[in-house]
Amino acid sequence: MANISKKVSWSSRAEESGVAGEGTSLLNGSEQPRLSRQLSGGGSIFQIGRLSTVDLEEEITSDEDSLRGRPKEIPHNEKLLSLKYESLDYDNIENQLFLEEERRMSYMGFRCLEISRWVVCGLIGFLTGLIACFIDIAVEELAGIKYQVVKHNIEKFTEVGGLSISLILWAVLNSSIVMFGAIIVAFFEPIAAGSGIPQIKCYLNGVKIPRVVRLKTLVVKVSGVICSVVGGLAVGKIFEYFRRDTEKRDFVSAGAAAGVSAAFGAPVGGVLFALEEGASFWNQMLTWRIFFASMISTFTLNFFLSIYHNKPGDLSNPGLINFGRFESDSVAYNLYEIPLFIIMGAIGGLLGALFNKLNYWLTIFRISLELDVSFTMIYFSNDCQPLGPEHTEEYPLQLFCADGEYNSMATAFFNTPERSVRSLFHNQPGTYNPLTLGLFTLTYFFLACWTYGLAVSAGVFIPSLLIGAAWGRLFGILLASITASGSIWADPGKYALIGAAAQLGGIVRMTLSLTVIMVEATGNVTYGLPIMLVLMTAKIVGDYFEEGLYDIHIKLQSVPFLHLEAPATSHWLTAREVMGSPVTCLNRIEKVGTIVDILSNTSTNHNGFPVVVQVTASDEPAKLCGLILRSQLIVLLKHKVFVELARSRLTQRKLQLKDFRDAYPRFPPIQSIHVSQDERECMMDLTEFMNATPYTVPQETSLPRVFKLFRALGLRHLVVVDDENRVVGLVTRKDLARYHLGKHGLEELQVAQT
Amino acid sequence: MANISKKVSWSSRAEESGVAGEGTSLLNGSEQPRLSRQLSGGGSIFQIGRLSTVDLEEEITSDEDSLRGRPKEIPHNEKLLSLKYESLDYDNIENQLFLEEERRMSYMGFRCLEISRWVVCGLIGFLTGLIACFIDIAVEELAGIKYQVVKHNIEKFTEVGGLSISLILWAVLNSSIVMFGAIIVAFFEPIAAGSGIPQIKCYLNGVKIPRVVRLKTLVVKVSGVICSVVGGLAVGKIFEYFRRDTEKRDFVSAGAAAGVSAAFGAPVGGVLFALEEGASFWNQMLTWRIFFASMISTFTLNFFLSIYHNKPGDLSNPGLINFGRFESDSVAYNLYEIPLFIIMGAIGGLLGALFNKLNYWLTIFRISLELDVSFTMIYFSNDCQPLGPEHTEEYPLQLFCADGEYNSMATAFFNTPERSVRSLFHNQPGTYNPLTLGLFTLTYFFLACWTYGLAVSAGVFIPSLLIGAAWGRLFGILLASITASGSIWADPGKYALIGAAAQLGGIVRMTLSLTVIMVEATGNVTYGLPIMLVLMTAKIVGDYFEEGLYDIHIKLQSVPFLHLEAPATSHWLTAREVMGSPVTCLNRIEKVGTIVDILSNTSTNHNGFPVVVQVTASDEPAKLCGLILRSQLIVLLKHKVFVELARSRLTQRKLQLKDFRDAYPRFPPIQSIHVSQDERECMMDLTEFMNATPYTVPQETSLPRVFKLFRALGLRHLVVVDDENRVVGLVTRKDLARYHLGKHGLEELQVAQT
Repeated sequence: MANISKKVSWSSRAEESGVAGEGTSLLNGSEQPRLSRQLSGGGSIFQIGRLSTVDLEEEITSDEDSLRGRPKEIPHNEKLLSLKYESLDYDNIENQLFLEEERRMSYMGFRCLEISRWVVCGLIGFLTGLIACFIDIAVEELAGIKYQVVKHNIEKFTEVGGLSISLILWAVLNSSIVMFGAIIVAFFEPIAAGSGIPQIKCYLNGVKIPRVVRLKTLVVKVSGVICSVVGGLAVGKIFEYFRRDTEKRDFVSAGAAAGVSAAFGAPVGGVLFALEEGASFWNQMLTWRIFFASMISTFTLNFFLSIYHNKPGDLSNPGLINFGRFESDSVAYNLYEIPLFIIMGAIGGLLGALFNKLNYWLTIFRISLELDVSFTMIYFSNDCQPLGPEHTEEYPLQLFCADGEYNSMATAFFNTPERSVRSLFHNQPGTYNPLTLGLFTLTYFFLACWTYGLAVSAGVFIPSLLIGAAWGRLFGILLASITASGSIWADPGKYALIGAAAQLGGIVRMTLSLTVIMVEATGNVTYGLPIMLVLMTAKIVGDYFEEGLYDIHIKLQSVPFLHLEAPATSHWLTAREVMGSPVTCLNRIEKVGTIVDILSNTSTNHNGFPVVVQVTASDEPAKLCGLILRSQLIVLLKHKVFVELARSRLTQRKLQLKDFRDAYPRFPPIQSIHVSQDERECMMDLTEFMNATPYTVPQETSLPRVFKLFRALGLRHLVVVDDENRVVGLVTRKDLARYHLGKHGLEELQVAQT
Repeated sequence: MANISKKVSWSSRAEESGVAGEGTSLLNGSEQPRLSRQLSGGGSIFQIGRLSTVDLEEEITSDEDSLRGRPKEIPHNEKLLSLKYESLDYDNIENQLFLEEERRMSYMGFRCLEISRWVVCGLIGFLTGLIACFIDIAVEELAGIKYQVVKHNIEKFTEVGGLSISLILWAVLNSSIVMFGAIIVAFFEPIAAGSGIPQIKCYLNGVKIPRVVRLKTLVVKVSGVICSVVGGLAVGKIFEYFRRDTEKRDFVSAGAAAGVSAAFGAPVGGVLFALEEGASFWNQMLTWRIFFASMISTFTLNFFLSIYHNKPGDLSNPGLINFGRFESDSVAYNLYEIPLFIIMGAIGGLLGALFNKLNYWLTIFRISLELDVSFTMIYFSNDCQPLGPEHTEEYPLQLFCADGEYNSMATAFFNTPERSVRSLFHNQPGTYNPLTLGLFTLTYFFLACWTYGLAVSAGVFIPSLLIGAAWGRLFGILLASITASGSIWADPGKYALIGAAAQLGGIVRMTLSLTVIMVEATGNVTYGLPIMLVLMTAKIVGDYFEEGLYDIHIKLQSVPFLHLEAPATSHWLTAREVMGSPVTCLNRIEKVGTIVDILSNTSTNHNGFPVVVQVTASDEPAKLCGLILRSQLIVLLKHKVFVELARSRLTQRKLQLKDFRDAYPRFPPIQSIHVSQDERECMMDLTEFMNATPYTVPQETSLPRVFKLFRALGLRHLVVVDDENRVVGLVTRKDLARYHLGKHGLEELQVAQT
């Protein structure tokens, strides 16, 4: 395995190496980046520290694989930090062009922009609601058709005793549908796999996830929950001003909120979800816009669904996933139950930690075995439907359920897991057999664990709720049987709800947003306090053993994720130790040839360059006067903004901000830009284009302080200067994400090229 | 009026002038700061721009008043920015002592600290809950006693025809109780007046409100809603480490959340409230702690109230202020009602703007007239109880209500406004006479408008809800009478709820947190969407005419409040124009006499001093090497940390962080520290104590960029340097808060000494 690690020292060079536009996958195990190219191109200048746990044999394998043309994922290691992820520019590039534009803009202009933002957010909400509505109707219709077909089949074959034929037919039907979906996902847009939440988390954190915000993704991920995609979409085409990472990020937040809002009918929960993930960049105006998107999304969904259900205008029963309303009287809880709830929370935390641990091992195991899509499919179709005898409601095709939930494939697609959750919450006491519930929990636990993170768009929310509801109900039943007379307060539905919250909380470790989502989805505030307690307990207990599922998967992908604060025990580190150095700097007026050479250097692949007054020959630090990005240089080169000194044409071609925006976000690679030998001799004046006031820190600044600045402002490059304002280093995301707090104090992740 | 304004130019000197420990009030109109002293002391070095609208006659008056000994509020002007408020140090002072301590601390040490934080937050929640419980029981008991006394009286006098005597007795009784409360508040702790929300807003924004976080305040403000006070309390005594503004701020957030949580039984709403106010300093771990405090607070309150109500252990009916649960079936809403809701939102916005405008004029008017406490009292006792014929529930003393709501004083204290809101929400259609409702709305509107901001601890929440509920119900009744058959969906209770939300939203302009608070207080999620819509509309409409009530009062107090972003059209301003300059700098090793002189200079009253390598004689800028605060210098002087060069004793007395913490937060004034003539000749080495890595910006940085850095990191001083890292200016809160976006583009507030 090509794991060119970088020893942590302040002589390391790499800051940000992104192979932009590459088809590398993010969070599914079915792909591999083109290792061989990176190996030959990028390996040479790095100090090869030590190879990771995976040995050379695998390196050859992946080399071969890449020759076969299908990109493939490298074996994951959570002790690595990948260099393949770029950061997003969440800090405005305040160069002269930008400032001039802002200064030209009138007060009314800003008002219009603000209104546009609201319009875009409204649009995001509207589209998300529409998509959610489409999914809901499609699933319902599909289930209806399948029901008719199979029922007809069964009736036909039962007479001639050929029930098994219809069973096979049915299984084939289901598998092929799932297979079809999986193939679409795996071949066209691997990013669309998984629940989408880790990707959104990373994106809001400031890590560039290739193509997470593109049209193609949208089309494939229509079946996904999080529709933040729409944000990025609506933006670029209509409003030119919004063509920057900063604006895009805000719209993605709105999309994430709208998605959750539509899924659970939880507009406030959606906003809180977006906040919990995108915390540090938050502000109040943005919150309101996000809230607006959230609201519109739920509203749209409800409106169209009410028409579909022939109750036009009835908006009081919101959400795609609805747990059914709990009536307050029947489910009041008592003080004596609080300890029970807390115990359930602890169980949820334990089970969640177990789930995450198992999933972690499975992910590693699966990746090493290089299971192909069709193999995973079998498991997936197993997973979707082991609903046992629960479906009592809409499609009463119970004949197969007598076999128990082992024949889960048989009941496939007749009951959505959501409906199962609802019956577990609301069915009368005595509906379920404790043994069935126990076996169901066990089976479903392992299946859900196995499937999360596979190539199919499947989340962890609903399966977790289902597992939790099952063991929660079991808990309630056992409780009622122990306290024979106490059956009044041990309503199993109540315990199913608490169990569902505990299990989900134990797995994903969200607290505030999840509480609100649960409350909004159940339509009853009474349970706010117990749900909170349970989620808190689950989080505390779970965190003791293992991280949250999303965090595990983010780590497994070696994403340079910045947490909210620097590790507590990192005060002894200063910018001097953390920064990358020496830094490739550019002169304010630089030779075109030099720029092309620097950009073409695949071994460094720097994305940001401090601009200095005069680079000295002896590599001594020079005075900082600005910062310029690779993407800007590319645009400058493309438009040949050169000063030909020889002919004393000192005026550069005037470039507008529009030229930069037009190139956003797919800046061409340097290789595609042709620069003649004559042009190489020209000069380029960067003064107008560089950010003249980049944030800086002195060398002695402690890591927590650097971290705080970097995180709070969403920076991509932070220049380290000495006391004469000369550039001595550059801090990027990887330099900070490298440190993390393990069980034994501060640990350092290795930085890998892939 | 002594309005020494400072023209905006980059030669202005003042950065932060705080007369710490002064008994100046914040948001009530009954006090005046000692103008005369400030006039003579601070006026001299300021360029006297132009006097404000208030003329010299008043100046003399206030001068006389200050001689009378009672501090008094100056006439307010929202175009001013007062220099009397200090900032809080929300940025850690990372000096050598601090870093050494942090480095010495083990991983376990940090764990313990983290656990302590949780313990403190739990304690805050618990105490808040207890206090809320105490208030609730006290109010209930008091009302019961009064009911008994008066009923007895009435029965006695009705026979002899002396009903008027009992009426007078009763009115006197009530007035004296209110008067007693008002006197306590006004004389002992003026900060406790008002709803407390603007104060908390300012505190979380980073403005030091004297004594907002002290024990005495707590005792007086027991009757207030926001208990964030407790945060500051618990901290200093128990955990020495928490003796800094940063930690304190976090606990205050927790307290604010706990307060709202207990008041409305809305733990999530409480957290959101704290977030909306303290946005920029937010992080996830903190949110969880705040959530925890919120939860504990509601829990404690419910637990003790359930015991008080003889239903121990029944926790499902939370909150001090409870609007009663809406049953879902009776109140489902329809699509056709959405436009109606939006119209109601718009009405709420309009009425809210009117309310705020009136309140604004009244505040100014009242302050100019210098109404004394007893005068306001009459109005206050008028205000508390004009509840008309609504009290049908607990104390059926309806005989006075026949007189209609004009005799509002008569029904005083028999019905809490909260109970009235509840009856407006839930009583059967037909209970209320439309005319009564209309008159009630009108009367109560003006009374509430008049009383907000007076010297008694009274909020705007409940009165607003009451007004809104009244006109909302009126709206519903009218609607039902128009659509004769439509009486099914025009349930007046529903419209009362919407009206209450609209009115409150129109006045305070909160959205997200208010939605959640309303939902949690009504116990029904169904109304989430309409409430959101209504609050949004109310905010948009209201903002068009007038700011929110809290913002108005913050502005009237000339508090240097930093909004979330710099004004949109401020890109043409740079740090150079904004900063204060020249800056008083200190040498790394400075003469004690110089330090004492600088600190004693009442005309500047600087609070932070850049430390430079060597101050040149000609006032030329010198290289920055650190930043030190007045409070630190005071502690150093107090402990006589001097180096006597003459005797070549070069070792300073070793000072610990503990010495600084012991002095926190009441650092003695410089006048109280005696420095002998010999000592004045000594030197002081600041190296160990200064923050060696202060944040800096270059001169060319645009105002929005400076603003973002300042706000995101909660700074107090931001050093402006040139390209050689030499100090050329200093940006403080006032320099940034000065610019705001008015109706005609960017406006500049004048900076006043008072």
